[in-house]
Amino acid sequence: MSRFWSSVVHGLSPYVPGEQPKVDGIVKLNTNENPYGPSPQVLAAIASATDRLRLYPDPRASLLCETIAARYDVAPEQVFVGNGSDEVLAHTFQALLKHDAPLLFPDITYSFYPIYCRLYGVRYEEVPLDATMRVPIAGFRRPCSAILLANPNAPTGIGLPRVAIETLLTEHPDQLVVIDEAYVDFGAESAVPLVARYDNLLIVQTLSKSRALAGLRVGFAIGQRHLIEALERVKGSFNSYPLDCLAIAGAVAAIKDDAWFQQTRARIIANRESLVHALSGLGFEVLPSLANFVFARHPSHSGAQLAAQLREHGVLVRHFRKQRIEDFLRITVGTEDQCSGLIALMSRLI
Amino acid sequence: MSRFWSSVVHGLSPYVPGEQPKVDGIVKLNTNENPYGPSPQVLAAIASATDRLRLYPDPRASLLCETIAARYDVAPEQVFVGNGSDEVLAHTFQALLKHDAPLLFPDITYSFYPIYCRLYGVRYEEVPLDATMRVPIAGFRRPCSAILLANPNAPTGIGLPRVAIETLLTEHPDQLVVIDEAYVDFGAESAVPLVARYDNLLIVQTLSKSRALAGLRVGFAIGQRHLIEALERVKGSFNSYPLDCLAIAGAVAAIKDDAWFQQTRARIIANRESLVHALSGLGFEVLPSLANFVFARHPSHSGAQLAAQLREHGVLVRHFRKQRIEDFLRITVGTEDQCSGLIALMSRLI
Repeated sequence: MSRFWSSVVHGLSPYVPGEQPKVDGIVKLNTNENPYGPSPQVLAAIASATDRLRLYPDPRASLLCETIAARYDVAPEQVFVGNGSDEVLAHTFQALLKHDAPLLFPDITYSFYPIYCRLYGVRYEEVPLDATMRVPIAGFRRPCSAILLANPNAPTGIGLPRVAIETLLTEHPDQLVVIDEAYVDFGAESAVPLVARYDNLLIVQTLSKSRALAGLRVGFAIGQRHLIEALERVKGSFNSYPLDCLAIAGAVAAIKDDAWFQQTRARIIANRESLVHALSGLGFEVLPSLANFVFARHPSHSGAQLAAQLREHGVLVRHFRKQRIEDFLRITVGTEDQCSGLIALMSRLI
Repeated sequence: MSRFWSSVVHGLSPYVPGEQPKVDGIVKLNTNENPYGPSPQVLAAIASATDRLRLYPDPRASLLCETIAARYDVAPEQVFVGNGSDEVLAHTFQALLKHDAPLLFPDITYSFYPIYCRLYGVRYEEVPLDATMRVPIAGFRRPCSAILLANPNAPTGIGLPRVAIETLLTEHPDQLVVIDEAYVDFGAESAVPLVARYDNLLIVQTLSKSRALAGLRVGFAIGQRHLIEALERVKGSFNSYPLDCLAIAGAVAAIKDDAWFQQTRARIIANRESLVHALSGLGFEVLPSLANFVFARHPSHSGAQLAAQLREHGVLVRHFRKQRIEDFLRITVGTEDQCSGLIALMSRLI
């Protein structure tokens, strides 16, 4: 508290990210990091960009926008890049989601969304997930200014097919539909092919998960030009150079190395399926995940207690103290060894 | 224009940064970059941080806050870091400068300030520089919510002594005074020693100029804990991880290598003094700069025309189409060779 604070500050309670432990030897399955690391091309690109550190980077990161555009078959003017998808989402809230009617998003989803709403004074209403923890398309048939969905949803991991997104887009032609595809590369259908036909669609993606670059902070949005322009106006009034020269170089290399991307995501998908099978065998209810994590609960063990026990054995998973999901654990899909180690430990605990 | 835009977007006209040419062979004296590059320790630190790219960085960048705190003799809780001082300033506007009474800043200063005001709906009034292009302390004796000064000021390069800042602080005990010290390390007096005694002082600095890291995007603020908390609340509601792992590692190394910092800034100061002397000899009026640039005009040549002529010869300087300063050029202090090359060229042009 201070007499110097702007009034908005008093009501803010920041997002609490998953723990980043400072000791070694922890098995970190709590923040959905990619166990295989980025493409070796990324490291080479970063090394050769260090001779430009004294110069300001390209404020538009044009090379990165062009690289993403080529990879996703859109125009460079349909791409916006930012300091992680969290920054891209923040600008989206300020540039495109502040209207008189409420924004709609599911009651169980990425818990940063209501925090952005408080920061920017965006009205919102939550649409409850159905009894199977799925996003109910019919629940969004009510007055609103915009709709925001994570697909696959977090922390459930459940994905909607592209046809369901298209239904939303046609049912709400005058409302913006934002699809947060942070986890889309692990098996879900991306809505990017719909961008050409729908002027009310904005897609947000990140390089933190499938490109294993959580430490580099790069995210992007794809949408028609008028939506990208709104984001650029806000970004250009906030920070001219949100991406440093190393992040631009590394991200370009990561997008270009499609072989590494395909190979590592296939391994993660395979590990996920083994993990789901093994957890189910131990009696867990496991939601059908299309992400690089699984969301699971055991009928006879509390989530909080299991998370604490795993922690005592040096394994971090994410647990949310929130109604309906308080007995679930969100477990990142690690390497083959991490998955089998987790299963061995879990079978001793339950 | 789009029906999906939030209302604020319509009124935004983003800051236009200095040009980043994509061709080689240009002498770039237009964006106040440091000609000597960062400490070799920075490159080593970045190289050894690349093995952490798959992991999220420390959201608080604690190691960097502690390093800055030790260097500037403040507590780590009195330090806030961000993605360049532009991001730190943006959060400052939202967290600390939005009040009923107007914010005051000089009419000629960093041209990003009014752009932030539009983004966040901050009321402001401009205080005219005096006839010698100095910031008039007496001009701030009027109703306001806060005061923002660049010291040294940009683009004039003129600095205020610490005692003048202290006068402002004592004359406005209930108004926040923000000092943007982007260029302070080239000869001006920092207000950091006043932080312990004034709860209404916030200082913003950058690693882009004196640490030669414009390409890495790191800035910071120093102030009492209640001010830093406001910035952290906004930051934590905006983007959990604004500094990537390479930026954190590189910035820590840059702050620690004080020998490199002292040596390169001394060279830039020496080059500046030679440049001022030579430009004066050519008939230029040169403002007394304490920054890594000079602001100069010639009595018989228009600024726009001189800038265009320099450009034709492969030398970029910054020119502002703004009343009172339209005949000035802002010229970055380059290497010894760049300075003498500029003088040789200028003597042919005038």
